[in-house]
Amino acid sequence: MNLKNDLLLKALRGEDIERVPVWMMRQAGRYLPEYIKIREKYSFFERCQTPELAAEITIQPIDIIGVDAAILFSDILVVPQAMGLEVQLIESKGPYLPNPIKTKKDFERIRVPEIDETLFYVMDAIKLIKERLDNRVPLIGFAGAPWTILCYMVQGKGSKTFDEAKAFCYQEPVLANQLLQMITDTTIAYLKAQIEAGVDTVQIFDSWGGLLSKADFELFSLPYIEQIVTAIKSKAPTIVFAKGAWSSLDTLSKTGAAALGLDWCITAPMARQFAGSNITLQGNFDPAKLLSPIPTIVKETETMLKAFGKRNYIANLGHGILPNVPVDHAKAFVNTVKNFDYSKLA
Amino acid sequence: MNLKNDLLLKALRGEDIERVPVWMMRQAGRYLPEYIKIREKYSFFERCQTPELAAEITIQPIDIIGVDAAILFSDILVVPQAMGLEVQLIESKGPYLPNPIKTKKDFERIRVPEIDETLFYVMDAIKLIKERLDNRVPLIGFAGAPWTILCYMVQGKGSKTFDEAKAFCYQEPVLANQLLQMITDTTIAYLKAQIEAGVDTVQIFDSWGGLLSKADFELFSLPYIEQIVTAIKSKAPTIVFAKGAWSSLDTLSKTGAAALGLDWCITAPMARQFAGSNITLQGNFDPAKLLSPIPTIVKETETMLKAFGKRNYIANLGHGILPNVPVDHAKAFVNTVKNFDYSKLA
Repeated sequence: MNLKNDLLLKALRGEDIERVPVWMMRQAGRYLPEYIKIREKYSFFERCQTPELAAEITIQPIDIIGVDAAILFSDILVVPQAMGLEVQLIESKGPYLPNPIKTKKDFERIRVPEIDETLFYVMDAIKLIKERLDNRVPLIGFAGAPWTILCYMVQGKGSKTFDEAKAFCYQEPVLANQLLQMITDTTIAYLKAQIEAGVDTVQIFDSWGGLLSKADFELFSLPYIEQIVTAIKSKAPTIVFAKGAWSSLDTLSKTGAAALGLDWCITAPMARQFAGSNITLQGNFDPAKLLSPIPTIVKETETMLKAFGKRNYIANLGHGILPNVPVDHAKAFVNTVKNFDYSKLA
Repeated sequence: MNLKNDLLLKALRGEDIERVPVWMMRQAGRYLPEYIKIREKYSFFERCQTPELAAEITIQPIDIIGVDAAILFSDILVVPQAMGLEVQLIESKGPYLPNPIKTKKDFERIRVPEIDETLFYVMDAIKLIKERLDNRVPLIGFAGAPWTILCYMVQGKGSKTFDEAKAFCYQEPVLANQLLQMITDTTIAYLKAQIEAGVDTVQIFDSWGGLLSKADFELFSLPYIEQIVTAIKSKAPTIVFAKGAWSSLDTLSKTGAAALGLDWCITAPMARQFAGSNITLQGNFDPAKLLSPIPTIVKETETMLKAFGKRNYIANLGHGILPNVPVDHAKAFVNTVKNFDYSKLA
């Protein structure tokens, strides 16, 4: 397996590279007309569960945008679904779990599942994607962080504050720990299976990590992320993206993760100061800034590249690409990273 | 005008005080059964615009919870309303502005209004509240930060990303500046009128400041906040609460504000490091933590008090109190601050 473009993996190992690699969170998604065509014909879970469709969607941004890595098309909520909870993903309405976990009794409805009996379709998709990618670029697997998955399993739907999920943790810390451990065990088995099937690296999305105080992040999120990173470390490097959890970059950098994702609200020098000098950083272009005129996108992308430097860095957005971004604007971002004159940088 | 309890004003001046003052954002609101009774009879704008009702609601938490300051019952969106935009505030649905600002042409529909022709009812309420408070505690006036008001004026409703508002600023920086300046001019006149009518201090709420990168915060939010603080500085001290804008605490501390509000995602030592040693800090108990059992609330409130210390500090939540918080839990928070043994602290 010799990848033609292994910039991402080199950056994750902290190696010297000719230029910074670039990909975009949600790059396989709603801003692409080619994706929308598929979405018009198939439901979300049809797209996730049909390897042929998942593969096509995963590879679209490689062909159309020219990013340096593919990321598996799937959703973090396939994990609670595999654990036994009903998950509905209705377009433009967000996730809905009609029977969330509220009490000890609700634990009877969930389990740590056998991955090959529940999420086999993901591994089938990965194998097909690897075949179709033909070693052009690495493939990124992913899962939600246990805290973020708990948020949905308890709250039952999206929320600005996830106050019911937080109240569950504050009122029932023992039950919360038990649930987080079940999610962690499932996630470890799931990511190991993804790696076995062919992904080259994995990203853990802690989308709601930033809703916790530093002390609570270190109680309810960090230890479970650390367990996952430790369990898969010998098999593949991990990128941890805990959105908004800037105040825990110091402890996250000690989990063994190869890279930390950053949102756009932190500056490069601050992130480097908090995370230390050795870990790779990934991010952090404001997704809304891709709605700017192209010359602004080019200028601000260059500013970002200069701020982060060439080494130990992966260019990305600070969160998922927005559905209303013109394809040309996404290309301008990616091409600016690819065509930048890195000889200017230290 | 001799206030019986002027702890808040002393803390804002950085004076030595016997104990830390405490109030709660949204303390006059939906968690209080007495408020809900009024809400059942009158619409949001009836409550805002009827001085008798606004006064009753403002004073409820003084009588029921025993906080050290009253905050005017109103809404930040009375400003765009006074500027000429229709604003609907529908219970449990959030704000809706049916004709938002999208282009230069839309500026024809807005103006910098005469405050005494548009927002006179606020000043009438303030006068009535001051009379009813009878100098028991100080009264806090408030307004939204211009950036946060622009978010609603352009996006037209609440949003997780306010991407349309941000796109407007990125695509039309000159127009955005013009709009921010109109909001700033209105806000300065409005806050001066509030102070004239009797408020003892004002808080500027930049609820969406945390959606901007540090560079953009310093372009689209900070200069306008600074103009406001400067314009009213000789008349009353200002508290600036820019939720999530932790990375701009350094520059916010140089605006002339007497205090900076903090959300719960920053620790006390970090906030002190970023904001410097002289400014008063306000916050930052996780509002969702008021859903914990009372002994947990007491313990964690004490942890917060120890972390911030007695001087240059106002105890508060890190955001508005949630509607599902039991009244006893809010009281436990406030009473813990009031009854703490401050002789233990440095």
